[in-house]
Amino acid sequence: MSWVGATETAEAVVAARKPYKLVSRDFHPEDSVIRVGDIAFGSSKVVIMSGPCAVESRDQVMESAAFMQHIGVPVLRGGAYKPRTSPYSFQGMAVEGLKILAEARERYGVLIVTEAVDHESLANVAEWADIVQIGARNMQNFELLKAVGQCGKPVLLKRGLAATIDEWLMAAEYVAAHGNLNIILCERGIRTYETKTRNTLDISAVPVVKQLSHLPVVIDPSHAAGQWQWVAPLARAGVAAGADGLIIEAHPNPAEALSDGPQSLNFRHLEELMKEAGQIAQAVGRTL
Amino acid sequence: MSWVGATETAEAVVAARKPYKLVSRDFHPEDSVIRVGDIAFGSSKVVIMSGPCAVESRDQVMESAAFMQHIGVPVLRGGAYKPRTSPYSFQGMAVEGLKILAEARERYGVLIVTEAVDHESLANVAEWADIVQIGARNMQNFELLKAVGQCGKPVLLKRGLAATIDEWLMAAEYVAAHGNLNIILCERGIRTYETKTRNTLDISAVPVVKQLSHLPVVIDPSHAAGQWQWVAPLARAGVAAGADGLIIEAHPNPAEALSDGPQSLNFRHLEELMKEAGQIAQAVGRTL
Amino acid sequence: MSWVGATETAEAVVAARKPYKLVSRDFHPEDSVIRVGDIAFGSSKVVIMSGPCAVESRDQVMESAAFMQHIGVPVLRGGAYKPRTSPYSFQGMAVEGLKILAEARERYGVLIVTEAVDHESLANVAEWADIVQIGARNMQNFELLKAVGQCGKPVLLKRGLAATIDEWLMAAEYVAAHGNLNIILCERGIRTYETKTRNTLDISAVPVVKQLSHLPVVIDPSHAAGQWQWVAPLARAGVAAGADGLIIEAHPNPAEALSDGPQSLNFRHLEELMKEAGQIAQAVGRTL
Amino acid sequence: MSWVGATETAEAVVAARKPYKLVSRDFHPEDSVIRVGDIAFGSSKVVIMSGPCAVESRDQVMESAAFMQHIGVPVLRGGAYKPRTSPYSFQGMAVEGLKILAEARERYGVLIVTEAVDHESLANVAEWADIVQIGARNMQNFELLKAVGQCGKPVLLKRGLAATIDEWLMAAEYVAAHGNLNIILCERGIRTYETKTRNTLDISAVPVVKQLSHLPVVIDPSHAAGQWQWVAPLARAGVAAGADGLIIEAHPNPAEALSDGPQSLNFRHLEELMKEAGQIAQAVGRTL
Repeated sequence: MSWVGATETAEAVVAARKPYKLVSRDFHPEDSVIRVGDIAFGSSKVVIMSGPCAVESRDQVMESAAFMQHIGVPVLRGGAYKPRTSPYSFQGMAVEGLKILAEARERYGVLIVTEAVDHESLANVAEWADIVQIGARNMQNFELLKAVGQCGKPVLLKRGLAATIDEWLMAAEYVAAHGNLNIILCERGIRTYETKTRNTLDISAVPVVKQLSHLPVVIDPSHAAGQWQWVAPLARAGVAAGADGLIIEAHPNPAEALSDGPQSLNFRHLEELMKEAGQIAQAVGRTL
Repeated sequence: MSWVGATETAEAVVAARKPYKLVSRDFHPEDSVIRVGDIAFGSSKVVIMSGPCAVESRDQVMESAAFMQHIGVPVLRGGAYKPRTSPYSFQGMAVEGLKILAEARERYGVLIVTEAVDHESLANVAEWADIVQIGARNMQNFELLKAVGQCGKPVLLKRGLAATIDEWLMAAEYVAAHGNLNIILCERGIRTYETKTRNTLDISAVPVVKQLSHLPVVIDPSHAAGQWQWVAPLARAGVAAGADGLIIEAHPNPAEALSDGPQSLNFRHLEELMKEAGQIAQAVGRTL
Repeated sequence: MSWVGATETAEAVVAARKPYKLVSRDFHPEDSVIRVGDIAFGSSKVVIMSGPCAVESRDQVMESAAFMQHIGVPVLRGGAYKPRTSPYSFQGMAVEGLKILAEARERYGVLIVTEAVDHESLANVAEWADIVQIGARNMQNFELLKAVGQCGKPVLLKRGLAATIDEWLMAAEYVAAHGNLNIILCERGIRTYETKTRNTLDISAVPVVKQLSHLPVVIDPSHAAGQWQWVAPLARAGVAAGADGLIIEAHPNPAEALSDGPQSLNFRHLEELMKEAGQIAQAVGRTL
Repeated sequence: MSWVGATETAEAVVAARKPYKLVSRDFHPEDSVIRVGDIAFGSSKVVIMSGPCAVESRDQVMESAAFMQHIGVPVLRGGAYKPRTSPYSFQGMAVEGLKILAEARERYGVLIVTEAVDHESLANVAEWADIVQIGARNMQNFELLKAVGQCGKPVLLKRGLAATIDEWLMAAEYVAAHGNLNIILCERGIRTYETKTRNTLDISAVPVVKQLSHLPVVIDPSHAAGQWQWVAPLARAGVAAGADGLIIEAHPNPAEALSDGPQSLNFRHLEELMKEAGQIAQAVGRTL
């Protein structure tokens, strides 16, 4: 009795030669452009995504969405399912939160990116949101990745806490091999010995991934920094290095945020960051 | 509108003071002893678990189980669901593999530990096996941890690739908070810059965890080393440091293993390791 | 018998409250501007330093210096003393190399930055060069740091391979406490588990150091990347994040470099990088 | 003009094939035994070295040496030159400290191991002590390593804070290539993201180094743990893994130590550790 059919053996041989295939630039030499609504990741336009860490209330989301529309941020982020280190921390508003996000989309014309954490939440997120986020802690939750491959929505795939670039691209390969090539990679800082910042933003990942893969890559300076004061410089660095977008935590009132308050920008600082990122984008021949 | 009920607020206050509670030694000053069949983790007897990385065939498992019985290894390991870095690698025999493991238990009187990777596999593993393993990549798959809390079987919780000891104990707290205190912690090497070994065995985790928590802790020298030659010294070190058990990859023919061949012991080397580990156990006042 | 005098005890108390003092922004709230010849680190002008890893021959240095003058790079780098991992690798041309660098300064009007590795080489470097470089491997060579404090020349202090930002600033404090506040900090990548790049550029170190200290900070994208293709994006990111300068390896013929060839730019690529860095500098309100 | 002579080129070719040569097991298949006085590192006897972090006073050293003699510890450790992170911390008693150590040797028959930090201190240490220690921060201070190669005394070479095993062996190769093959390697914990312990003891380094090199290797559990409670389990693990010795910080009164108090054992705990380590040594066919 054997599990190996002839075809699978052949694939294993291919895989041994080159760990990723569908997401490799060898397979697709041109940059992939991932279209969502009327925006495009991987184009000359740098895509900004912003909003609170967690959906906390209808008011908080509407106020955020209105501001995003006002300053021209096309994608609203906000977690309805929150993977928290402690079982005693706020775990998110779930479907109720998704419905609030969907209402914000209707009213303010923003697209929605939000995280899925298992098969059930994935089904809900794929129904209510525009982009499915897979978080760092689930980057090698392979069963979830397989399901994302079949969910029919673009995915924002965050790099794992201590994932190598190869492992990250292999996670993308899981999604691709199960049918979904609309993948946006997101560098959000890796774990190192340095404790001043929450994580260490691996800015080099931008040009390295661009060389290895055709997929767009965005930067999450908020989870990397862990402190709002350092978010803008990292956002500028990300755009300068060639990132195709930014995802930034912002909150109407960071001091009262239920999660990630210290790393959340208030709206005035977000507006300033947008201007600065726009100037860097221009310097590298792009726009926001 | 608020998500926080009065009880949850109180719990949050407690959690803020001390991140883990149920798994903390403050909560339970005595060592926990986790009984499975007629063995006990956390007792004076060091528990050895061994077997192949993956269930590959009925013959392979029966040969392994017979040998484990022969040399007195009470627990057989073997993966029916394999979380693999590549989507093109062997993903495991699933339920068919579980049935083979269960047959081995009947014939050779060994207990079975095997990994679950999502809700569906968890239900199957909980039905067919004695101990549910949660792998390093799923250590912060919180939805899976919640389900493990309700699965009714003891759990072997591996430390994440780059998890701090606090995060690992918080993962255990998830399982505990959802109803299951039969948790065996497993140190299997952490990710560092050193590349000679597959991972870096954090041997200090044994005394540190013993001080912070009442739960038993075992060592996986195979995934730490990545090379079979270094497994025995690490196994001896684990027992010397106070580990309550060892989980060791062994294969009837490592050269032909479908996964983890280089780090798998052959049976002769496993038998030698058992003798050496037994002598160390004696030196620290325990037995195998 | 006791080693502690009354004054030292008082200093110890101060040090316990705040690990660094002279290099802290609390001590000197304004940005320090370090003047060398007619350039200034920490001003609105971003200072570019470039040249080969090692001084290999008079021709190589003259060709490099001529090109630096041609494209407006004000500081020539080049190692006369090379700390090499292997005792069998080229260890540098020593004083002969320093004299070549000094000749290049005379002919082409470039300033010279070059590394010192012990007391003897420090005396020579301080005599022949404009800026003394202390390399990553010597960042906690405290006896050397004490001597640098008394050498009378500005110092470029590279961050250690795995030094925390606090340890790096404490190394600067050694130099300052021994009499030299003309310190330029240099982030050159830290050691992590990621192997695609030679090191991981900790771009966050720029805003973090700027908040903690008044000293200027520059970026070395070459040693971080390890591959010339990724040097330009990292250089742009450094300027965007607020770095006061860049130090970049460039070689007339990288393929024949005696050390660090793969990460060295050729002169055409260096010229392109200068243009790109200039555009980013403008976007953040500075010039090259 | 070229720096490369014909002989050096040939050596470079050899070095390219195999980074270390003299310290490699290929070069010397048998275990090296390093004899110092009447003890031997790399023999069947596990060598214990213990004493305070720093030489603080004559009384402290004499009390320590008397106790070491009493319990059969053959080597007294104690720093006369202290490489400290802060310039405001106690920097050691220098030659005065060395003389106290030498007096302790005369009175109590213990051998002396103590650290050198530059050329000057090296000359003094080589004159007054039996074993020259090179600390983690100086592991790639290549000029110091060259001088150690000619100092005429055995060297205890600590692994750098974030040195790979290859880099550590290359540092040993520097010493060997400059004339000194009496090298004892010392694993003292590496820098990782885990903060519970001061460093992460890389216990795997013992069998890995034993395979690659003929040199003896000892373990420093004190600097790895950072807390005295965890020193004994790590010491036992070290002996179980095959280490040829242990170097352990112990102080007559840890609460009043000028440095490293929290990780120092008191004498009663040291005596217990000796018994435990002796039992483990016996279990692996050795003695203390």
